[in-house]
Amino acid sequence: MAKIIIDAFGSDEGPEMVANAVKLARQEKDFEAILVGPKEQMYPVLEGVDKVEFIHTENFIENTESPVMAIRKKKDASIVLALQRLNEEGDVLLSAGSTGALLGGGYFITKRLEGIHRACLAVWVPNPHGGTILVDSGANMDTSPEILYQFAVLGAAYSEADLGVERPRVGLLNVGSEEGKGDKRAIETYKLLKDSSLNFVGNVEARDILNGVCDVLVTDGFAGNIALKTLEGAASSLLGALKKSIYSSTKSKIGGWLIKDAMKEALKDYSLDNRGGAPLLGIKKPVYKAHGNSNAEVFKIAIMEALAYAESHVEDRIIRILAEKE
Amino acid sequence: MAKIIIDAFGSDEGPEMVANAVKLARQEKDFEAILVGPKEQMYPVLEGVDKVEFIHTENFIENTESPVMAIRKKKDASIVLALQRLNEEGDVLLSAGSTGALLGGGYFITKRLEGIHRACLAVWVPNPHGGTILVDSGANMDTSPEILYQFAVLGAAYSEADLGVERPRVGLLNVGSEEGKGDKRAIETYKLLKDSSLNFVGNVEARDILNGVCDVLVTDGFAGNIALKTLEGAASSLLGALKKSIYSSTKSKIGGWLIKDAMKEALKDYSLDNRGGAPLLGIKKPVYKAHGNSNAEVFKIAIMEALAYAESHVEDRIIRILAEKE
Repeated sequence: MAKIIIDAFGSDEGPEMVANAVKLARQEKDFEAILVGPKEQMYPVLEGVDKVEFIHTENFIENTESPVMAIRKKKDASIVLALQRLNEEGDVLLSAGSTGALLGGGYFITKRLEGIHRACLAVWVPNPHGGTILVDSGANMDTSPEILYQFAVLGAAYSEADLGVERPRVGLLNVGSEEGKGDKRAIETYKLLKDSSLNFVGNVEARDILNGVCDVLVTDGFAGNIALKTLEGAASSLLGALKKSIYSSTKSKIGGWLIKDAMKEALKDYSLDNRGGAPLLGIKKPVYKAHGNSNAEVFKIAIMEALAYAESHVEDRIIRILAEKE
Repeated sequence: MAKIIIDAFGSDEGPEMVANAVKLARQEKDFEAILVGPKEQMYPVLEGVDKVEFIHTENFIENTESPVMAIRKKKDASIVLALQRLNEEGDVLLSAGSTGALLGGGYFITKRLEGIHRACLAVWVPNPHGGTILVDSGANMDTSPEILYQFAVLGAAYSEADLGVERPRVGLLNVGSEEGKGDKRAIETYKLLKDSSLNFVGNVEARDILNGVCDVLVTDGFAGNIALKTLEGAASSLLGALKKSIYSSTKSKIGGWLIKDAMKEALKDYSLDNRGGAPLLGIKKPVYKAHGNSNAEVFKIAIMEALAYAESHVEDRIIRILAEKE
């Protein structure tokens, strides 16, 4: 039976919400859980639920701390204890805490897969064509072409093994579609991807991110963060303006009521409501990041995703693709 | 009287459209025009219009050519002849052609302003808060902190002198709001901007691009292109999906008809319809880029913008801000 280790700190709603999410998830699937955090906040929720263990701690790493320093100094921080336990046993670790601390802890405690330079966060970007995995989504700055090539391998392995995409199409986020476009890093990365065993479909311009032209979109964490947050901001600003103006007159209010269902249907394809988080690819054992603003329903989804991620054994696939290159 | 030199090649609709745009612009403002391109296509449109001169050529630089090579080899390309004429006389050059060729020609023929490392394209990003100038919007790859600092100076000078913004707020596009976030380039650029005489408001996350938190947004051309094209793609994809789903039933069609005016009003703030182009900042004499897909009405707007840009003497302001630093 799968065993998940959960860092109960890090989400806005706190450990009690996490305990509620575990309870919800257990109604859908049988698994063992080890919860790392303040036992007195979680125990009352989970009293009577079996196969739940607690590792009590009241310390955690905050978003504002330097992750690497904090990982080394705060020996009893929840994420440190959780990763140490993952080294000993368990199938996957789930945390809604700081991405930096998760990455740092992944590097120093659980370690990277052999030959992997950097781990990357693989966020699923929803679109009407089945979505696209963005690697890296913002965990790594100052990368190199070799690192970006590895992100492509990590993303493709995840897309194939966990999401079930056959021969995932890998695109390189770039400023133009022709070979030779972009900065030095993009130009060199293009060459590495072209010569690889991956199903490389070439450069992808940012205006096509939502057009489903690839399953895995490769980029540096800086540009990946810019793309992801620009999407978020554009959607929220445009839809906000539309809503506001629909509420501005009786006529348009009636119109708004008449298109409500159609609007909901249209926006469903762009929604992240059914996603709980994203894997940190490239670590020796599965590590999964949940959204910081999760409620129990969303964190439950993250638990299910993390368990499925562990069961898909993406690490094996990564090692296989890397070996194909030799 | 202001004199504008126009590269008549480069737009999708071609030289005849450009001649029509000149005719339209002359109905609004008195100016002299020198048109560089195939005279036989433009002369019939402008017959009888005074203060119009033609430099005949049938050669031009295509988007697919290496700009630097083409600038050096194609001595009779329209952009080469136009820039050479700009060196001799005239207040501003306008072209809808390849940005690369315009940048290359600006560097090798007209030259940069003293002390300026790179010229940058300053695209105005519309939003409900008066818009934001994005420097660089995609002309330069592989920049340094010093180059990004100069983009900030160029953008601030343009915002102040041409767009009339007092003490423009300068933001740095970054992956987080705190100092110390981002890649090495962003971290170093932050320090330069903080120590400058500019009105620096700190890091700006991509989700805030449309929220009007700054007047000038500084970034490398790679990230600038990603941000700009992600905005474009998100708007087109979302609005396309909404439209499609509104047309899917009679009920929602009626609703769509009722909210039509409200929708138009809401989207006005995000529209580029009233913009004709963007300046290439940092060149010794004013150079202005028109949209490649302009029709005569939009190219007319670009002519008016280019003339206003020339009259605002942004170069003087740039030199002044750079001197303040010493």
